[in-house]
Formats: sequence, structure tokens, C-alpha cells
Amino acid sequence: MKAVVRRGPRLHVADVPEAVPQAGQVVAKTLACGICGSDLHAVHHLEHSIEMGLRSGAANTLDPARDLVLGHEFCAEILDYGPETDKRLKPGTQVVSTPFAFGPLGPELIGFSTRYRGAFAERLVLTEALLLPVPNGLAPEAAALTEPLAVGTHAVSVGDPGPRSVALVIGCGPIGLAVIVALKRRGVGPIIAADFSPTRRARAERLGADIVVDPAETSPHAAWSSFDVPATLAEMGLAQMAGRTLRDAIIFECVGVPGMLQSLMEGAPPGAHVVVVGACAEDDTILPVLAINKQLRFSFVFAYSPDEFAETLHALGEGEIDPEVFLTGKVSLDETAAAFERLASPGNDVKIVVQPWR
Amino acid sequence: MKAVVRRGPRLHVADVPEAVPQAGQVVAKTLACGICGSDLHAVHHLEHSIEMGLRSGAANTLDPARDLVLGHEFCAEILDYGPETDKRLKPGTQVVSTPFAFGPLGPELIGFSTRYRGAFAERLVLTEALLLPVPNGLAPEAAALTEPLAVGTHAVSVGDPGPRSVALVIGCGPIGLAVIVALKRRGVGPIIAADFSPTRRARAERLGADIVVDPAETSPHAAWSSFDVPATLAEMGLAQMAGRTLRDAIIFECVGVPGMLQSLMEGAPPGAHVVVVGACAEDDTILPVLAINKQLRFSFVFAYSPDEFAETLHALGEGEIDPEVFLTGKVSLDETAAAFERLASPGNDVKIVVQPWR
Repeated sequence: MKAVVRRGPRLHVADVPEAVPQAGQVVAKTLACGICGSDLHAVHHLEHSIEMGLRSGAANTLDPARDLVLGHEFCAEILDYGPETDKRLKPGTQVVSTPFAFGPLGPELIGFSTRYRGAFAERLVLTEALLLPVPNGLAPEAAALTEPLAVGTHAVSVGDPGPRSVALVIGCGPIGLAVIVALKRRGVGPIIAADFSPTRRARAERLGADIVVDPAETSPHAAWSSFDVPATLAEMGLAQMAGRTLRDAIIFECVGVPGMLQSLMEGAPPGAHVVVVGACAEDDTILPVLAINKQLRFSFVFAYSPDEFAETLHALGEGEIDPEVFLTGKVSLDETAAAFERLASPGNDVKIVVQPWR
Repeated sequence: MKAVVRRGPRLHVADVPEAVPQAGQVVAKTLACGICGSDLHAVHHLEHSIEMGLRSGAANTLDPARDLVLGHEFCAEILDYGPETDKRLKPGTQVVSTPFAFGPLGPELIGFSTRYRGAFAERLVLTEALLLPVPNGLAPEAAALTEPLAVGTHAVSVGDPGPRSVALVIGCGPIGLAVIVALKRRGVGPIIAADFSPTRRARAERLGADIVVDPAETSPHAAWSSFDVPATLAEMGLAQMAGRTLRDAIIFECVGVPGMLQSLMEGAPPGAHVVVVGACAEDDTILPVLAINKQLRFSFVFAYSPDEFAETLHALGEGEIDPEVFLTGKVSLDETAAAFERLASPGNDVKIVVQPWR
């Protein structure tokens, strides 16, 4: 079958062995699979990603010398069942699932494993027990947004904003926008959103951000005081002495480059909860005493729980999320390498979806 | 009256103007005041501390060119009342209080303010509304431990360990030991405690640490697996697949030097909550993606709430805390500068208390 394979730091369209389901697995036809920032990173920095995984105590599921099929934001159609399966869903059913498979080393990420190929391929093998049927005739490319949107659901769940929280979302790429979606669904507001790109700011507004900020012109922290969040320790002290009620700040870091955490230690209001969603894979410098003085919290988050994934799919199915804000391109396998290039400097793009049947 | 003053980067015994209470204040005789690591830091790095405060958004309450009287871990005896006071407690009552005063810039820290002198002096001015009488005839030097012990109470309160949490305390100076006290009082166990000093490890054991580790010989993270905390992502994945129940890790960083946070990002088990009590006032390097992969949380803490302070005093009064584990020296004002020198390389010391009446 046809697939996009990473071979060295390049993507090629190649013929790969057919997807064959083992015990507890199904084989499915890929209908749509989004391109993720981590896919882009893996093409050029796979060895580094592996090293980061090993240093995090993960099992090594990747041999960088071998062809790798990426793709973990998928919607697929069940074709056939492997042995020892319950066959709960009929062949032809459109499904999504968390991108996990269970091997001898423990859970592995589909699309980041030499053993479990991803969905930039005509067909892929999935674990039957994880399959969720796509509800309400939701389009496959919209259903494929479940995965990145679930990252936002999880980040907001960990952040756990209260009724008086004021939210700041730094970076309005796919993940920052997913966070805005999750905040709106939870009823959190006001939401301040910051991004250098005017088109990304416009998308943040479409999703319901109350204030959008161009960090080149205005500090993302300029608006705190106007929402009764004391912006500094001095302001907090005076407000407390005056008996003024205070609101708390929750900040979602969705950029993931060096310097972001320190800029938050400098700029965040006292007591702020910072949810770090952007994965900075380089050495970063911070001055911890600032975080001590302000009593900041940093929650580093990754992925989502199965419940958060299912709940996000449900919300998409109920029409609570507008997929069109995210979907900016649909490409074939032959066009995938070019789409990766396009996303390297995203411009107006948010999510490009690969449709291997095209 | 006599006081120890910081003048330039040196301590001198000097005659300073008498302590005169203003509206809402009392004048009190200092009975005992502990020397804190932040006092040591202030002697040599006052300008840097001020800069860190300003960068944290604090009001500037210090003029480094002027004499400064340090000392914020005090127990004192009420001598007289200023105007506009309720005179709720009789003169002669022994009291402690949170080291705050309320000025035009907001709350200021007594002992870190040019306006509100600290307790390395024969007498000091306190805010009447904050005074707590010392209960049950508790000795003044033990009552003076309320402040550093309250830092441990607060750190554990923010950490919020559950019944299945396993705790690791890194650094067994006064603050690390205060954290162990608070963990034991909350019933958390097992407690692993790490310090290079054998005498500090012995003190940790006296306070109830279950395992003490010399980091020069053994990784503080070596014991996780033996307590059913999965030490790595790979172990966690396999344990989850096997349906094994997992325990969570809570780590208290009580050292505050560069490299500690990165060593925790490398060594901490997945999902660990790190409570950062040690204030690293230098640039520090971290690799954030490791914290993302492991979904770590870092809560930076400072001081305590008034309730935590009062509750800690109560526990001392009820004999729930052994002050003798902490108290390793008692000195006069004339001996204070030498005690600061001694604490610069603490050896067997934990807390040296200044008794200005000696």
C-alpha cells in the first residue's frame, strides 16, 4: 500500500507492506489525518526526539534508521477485524481513537513507533478496544480534529479555571486555538489571546477570544489590571489592604520556544497558574526566585485522558465546535511533503489534513 | 537601643533610635529571633535581593545605602501600646506574629524594610492586630521557630499530598526539616529525605523520615519503585497495562541552587508534583520538554497564610513538634555576626537564635 515515509530527514511517498491486524486489532482505511507540529519536528529532529523520550524515561519505540510512517490525528473506516476481536462495530463504520497501541514495551504512540505505523498511509492498524464511532455524520476531516482539540480539553482540565479566573492564551496555533475552544466550552472568560500573526488572532476572535493582542505592539500582560487581576505583588498588597476582591490569572503557554517560561515568570501576575502546553525541546533559562516571590504554579501537560478524548469527539459531533476555523488545507499523500514545507512557516495555515484516498 | 545593623555587606552592633509605636502598633522586647538563610543572603547580596523583588513586581521597601536591621523569626514580650490600639493583650505577654507591617506601599516585611526594623535589636515595633500570644508557656526560642516551621506547613498545604502520596524532601536544612515536620503532622508517609550532611540526615530521621539518602552515594530517586511509584514513563505504561495500582510522588525542593530543577525534571517520576521551596536567585537552565513528557507540576511557594502561621504556633504549643531538633545555638547581639559566619557553612547547625537581652 501507499504511504508517506520518513527516510532520513525527508518525506517520500513509498510502497509499504500491507497493514495486517493482529490479535485485538482492526485494519482501517485512513479517511483523514492532520499534520501536527510534532510530526514536523520528527522529520528533522527524530534523533533528538528519541533522546528526549529516553531522558524522560520512555521506552524506545523508534529506530531512526528505519522508515517511519507518521500521523496520529486520524479518522478511519473499519475494513476488517483481526483475530480475538469482539467485532462490536460493523465494517464501514467511521472511527477515531486515541493514537495508542499496546506492545511488549507498554503503550506506544501510533505514528511515533517503528512497530505501529501512523495514518499518513492508505490503511492502518488500530486497537479495537479504543475505537470510538464518529457521531452524527461528522465529516472525517472534522473528526480528525478530535486529537488536537483533546489536547486543549486536557490543558484546560488541568488548569481547572474557576468562575473568577481570567485566561491568557499565548500562541494561537492549533493548540492555542484548541485551548480557546475548551475555555469557551467551560464558560471561562474573559479570554485574552496573543499571537504575532493577524490571521491567527482573527481565528482566536472567531472562536470567542475577548481580547486579542499582538505581542509586537502590546504586552500580553497589559490587560490584567483592567479585569481586577492584580498585575504585580505591589498591586496585590494594596488591593488586599483595601479589601478589594481579586481575580486569579490562568495562562496557557502554547508556543514552546526558549524564553517563554522566563517571560511568564517576569510578566505573570502573582499567584498565576501557568499551564505549559508548548513543548520546548531546547535548553531554557529561568530565574526561579521570581516564581517563588510570586508563588506561580507551572503545570506541564501532555496529551489527554481517554475520557477527555471521547468528550471532545462528542462536542464536535454536537456541533459545539466549528471545525472550519481549524481546517486550512486538504492534501493527498503525494502533496504531503509540500504541506509539511508549508507548515514550517505556517502563515495563514492552522491544520492541514492528509486524505490518503485522494 | 542596641541592634545588629547591616551597613554595607557587614554586620555591626550599633546604637539605633528607640523603637516607637505608631497608630495600631505596639513596642515589644525581643526575646528570641532566628537567623534565616534569607538574612545571610541579604548581608552579601542586598542589591540583588532588591532587584529580584522589583522584577517580581514588589514595592521597593529598602534603601541599601541605609542601615538595615534584619530579623523576622521572632518572639517578643509586649512592653507598651501606641495610639489607636485595643490593648487586648497585657504588657508582659509573650507574642509572635507574621513579620508584616502595613505602610503606604502596602504590606512590608519586617526585617527587610528600611521603614520596619527587624528583631536583631533589643526592641521592635509590631502590628497589634497580628499578635498571637505564645501558648502553654512555650519557650521564646521555640516560639521563634513558628515562622520557619510555618514555611513547611504552607509548602505541604500547597503540595496537598493524598493518602497514597510518597514524599521526597531534597535538602534537610531548616526548611527541609520544617517540611518533614509538616508531612509527619499530616500523616504522610513514607518520607524519603536527602542531604549531603550526615548530621542533617540524622535530624531528618529524628523527625520521622523513613529513608534518608546521601545524594553523593545514592540517587534520591532510587527508592520510588520500592514504594509502588512508577519511576519512569516506561514503568508507568507497563504498570497501567498490568492493572497495577500506582502511587504518586510529591517532591519538596528545599535547596534552591542552580541545577536542582533540571535534576528533578530528569529524575522525578511521571506525574510528580514538585513544590519548590528553595529560592534559586540565579539563572537556571532547564529542558522543559522532559517536564511535558512526564506531566510534572511545579508549585513555587513563599511564606504562609496567617492561618498556617497560627496553626503552626498551636502545634508547637501542644508539644507536637520537637524544637530541640532545630535549635543548635543561642547567641547575643555581640555574637550575631560570628553566628552569621558560622551559618555560611552550616556544618552541624540548623537554627541559631539571637537573644538580644543576653
